[in-house]
Amino acid sequence: MEPVVLGIVVEFNPYHLGHQYFISQAKALINPNVMIAITSTSFSMRGEIAIVDKFTKTEQMLAEGIDIVLELPCAKSVQSADFFAYHAIKTLSQMQITDLAFGVENEDIALLYQLLTIIQTPDFQKHLQIALKTYTSYKRAYTQAFEKSGTSSELIALFNQPNVTLALQYLKAIQDLKLDVKIHPLKRMGSHYHDTAITHRFASAGAIRRALRSGKDISEYVPESTLKLSFVDQALAEERLFSLLQYAMLVKNPNYGEFFGLSEGIENYLRQHLRNATSYSDFLERIKNKRYSISKCQRIFFYLLWELPKKFDQFHPYLRILGFTVRGEKYLNTLPKETKGEILTSLKHSKNPIGLIELKATQLYEILTQKQGLTQKEFLIPLKRKD
Amino acid sequence: MEPVVLGIVVEFNPYHLGHQYFISQAKALINPNVMIAITSTSFSMRGEIAIVDKFTKTEQMLAEGIDIVLELPCAKSVQSADFFAYHAIKTLSQMQITDLAFGVENEDIALLYQLLTIIQTPDFQKHLQIALKTYTSYKRAYTQAFEKSGTSSELIALFNQPNVTLALQYLKAIQDLKLDVKIHPLKRMGSHYHDTAITHRFASAGAIRRALRSGKDISEYVPESTLKLSFVDQALAEERLFSLLQYAMLVKNPNYGEFFGLSEGIENYLRQHLRNATSYSDFLERIKNKRYSISKCQRIFFYLLWELPKKFDQFHPYLRILGFTVRGEKYLNTLPKETKGEILTSLKHSKNPIGLIELKATQLYEILTQKQGLTQKEFLIPLKRKD
Repeated sequence: MEPVVLGIVVEFNPYHLGHQYFISQAKALINPNVMIAITSTSFSMRGEIAIVDKFTKTEQMLAEGIDIVLELPCAKSVQSADFFAYHAIKTLSQMQITDLAFGVENEDIALLYQLLTIIQTPDFQKHLQIALKTYTSYKRAYTQAFEKSGTSSELIALFNQPNVTLALQYLKAIQDLKLDVKIHPLKRMGSHYHDTAITHRFASAGAIRRALRSGKDISEYVPESTLKLSFVDQALAEERLFSLLQYAMLVKNPNYGEFFGLSEGIENYLRQHLRNATSYSDFLERIKNKRYSISKCQRIFFYLLWELPKKFDQFHPYLRILGFTVRGEKYLNTLPKETKGEILTSLKHSKNPIGLIELKATQLYEILTQKQGLTQKEFLIPLKRKD
Repeated sequence: MEPVVLGIVVEFNPYHLGHQYFISQAKALINPNVMIAITSTSFSMRGEIAIVDKFTKTEQMLAEGIDIVLELPCAKSVQSADFFAYHAIKTLSQMQITDLAFGVENEDIALLYQLLTIIQTPDFQKHLQIALKTYTSYKRAYTQAFEKSGTSSELIALFNQPNVTLALQYLKAIQDLKLDVKIHPLKRMGSHYHDTAITHRFASAGAIRRALRSGKDISEYVPESTLKLSFVDQALAEERLFSLLQYAMLVKNPNYGEFFGLSEGIENYLRQHLRNATSYSDFLERIKNKRYSISKCQRIFFYLLWELPKKFDQFHPYLRILGFTVRGEKYLNTLPKETKGEILTSLKHSKNPIGLIELKATQLYEILTQKQGLTQKEFLIPLKRKD
């Protein structure tokens, strides 16, 4: 019998009880022979500074029962949900996963496919194009398009759940890549299900970051392994980011048209507000609720600092393993020679454009967090866990 | 009778009792009709962040009895002593000064000229070239060359006084520019003359900056007008500078050969130490006492951040007035039409390369000090003092 190879996509920013529950739930239901996670690294999909460095996070993931940790490099992860999901699924598929699990508010897979089907109809797409011209928020434009194309209010409500967008993108990626993978949407335990004592402990990663920021105790919401970590001082790191952005956008004043993600005058919009902002949080406050989403802006900040060229190819192949356990290593040995050959074993002397950006991103993360020696650690990857 | 137009070169980082004494001494001895000062702006000759912004400093200088404040822009002032002095004297000469006063440890002008003459002999220059190959410090190389060319130990001791190098450079600039200017070396009151209570109050600007840094009271060493100023938080500004340098040298990793002042592998030397440094002061500590002087390194940091091209022409004409009093304005009106035409009245739309760097430098200073609105003030220059 073929082994069950389960893939999951994570950020773990930071790893909390909800994530731990998700992993144990997936193991109990799917009973995989190998569990492979792909994770974003120094910066999140939304363009935030990761609260734990990727090397420490990898060690923790291996200790928490994941057999292989794949890298979703910054150039592929600091992207909108559709690209993030596509790159994650594509990379997992190279590891020949047989199953995919993800957390979502409603685990009824038929309903998710129903939504995906509606979105892909020409009728819906026509309404969406019109709505996007009226509404500045994607959520509102989608809602309007759903209404115009006669979608039921239950389905619209489902679409508006926080994790459904990403779930749909996973389904779409599997469809686009024509993958033969079993799909397991697992009901997410979140802080909005606070009717029982136990679920109340499932705080979101964002809530935990906010708690850490204000110096609150988080021991109720995270496992032991997370409590031991040394977290990034978010406020300090963001102030350093603020100085770098001011430098890059106001002193250097380059030809923005040359950079990835910069178009439609967004550069002028950002510079205008940056001039008057007094801190990073004040800057975000000023650009919020206007024409562009905060996530889009935050991603652009990093494209700018990495000096990602306009025609940067985010689809360039990149397969790199951050770490594995003994079981993970055994599985890796069973992969076809061809797949093994695609694995980037070292970034030293590598000219892979995605790898070069990853090195820059790690160096930038080191500067922002003042955690020394991270860039050198890039050359000690993959981490091997002996037990 | 022609008016006596006295020029002085200052940094005032910050303005202290020694400076005030120097001005009153110059006025008493020379009795000028107009007093013109040229000052460095956001960064000092040694590549340090000015402790008071240039606009505030200009206001203070006008209040303290200076009639016209000229700008020695960053591109001309963040330079070694010889270039700094040349640019300062050249610019003052455009204002048709008749007299020049400067502070020096020994006011015997004959001795200063004696030193200058020795330095300019082919014999001394030959010894200096040899000595520069052996000694990494300019001071030690000069001392060796003086000894080899038979200079008296008294003259060598004089040369080694802190302000003599700059004094010699002023004399040399006047010589090179063939100026008809009366020279007034004034004996400097410094903290090394601490035999009386009054001279003890003449602390150096460096000592005052160190005192401010450690939160000590400086009221004994500065006039009222300085006490009222809001000083830059030096430690914070330097930490921001540190992050920007890390970004510019480790993330961006440009072709250093293209930048001004970068040669002989100094870029590798700096990057090597920057990688391991934990703070700006730690960085300076690491690069100190090695092959390059701290001042040279600090200047290079700014060339890098301004992205000053290799072939940047620091000799490009630049004449800009930061401020004047009623008396200063009257004098300006007496200048020939041609000279008036050379004065840059606005940096708006100006393509003067020195002016473009000055705008960048002000923007950088604003970022480092988080003093808002300075860049906008560039367009409100010159300041006019009504009384």
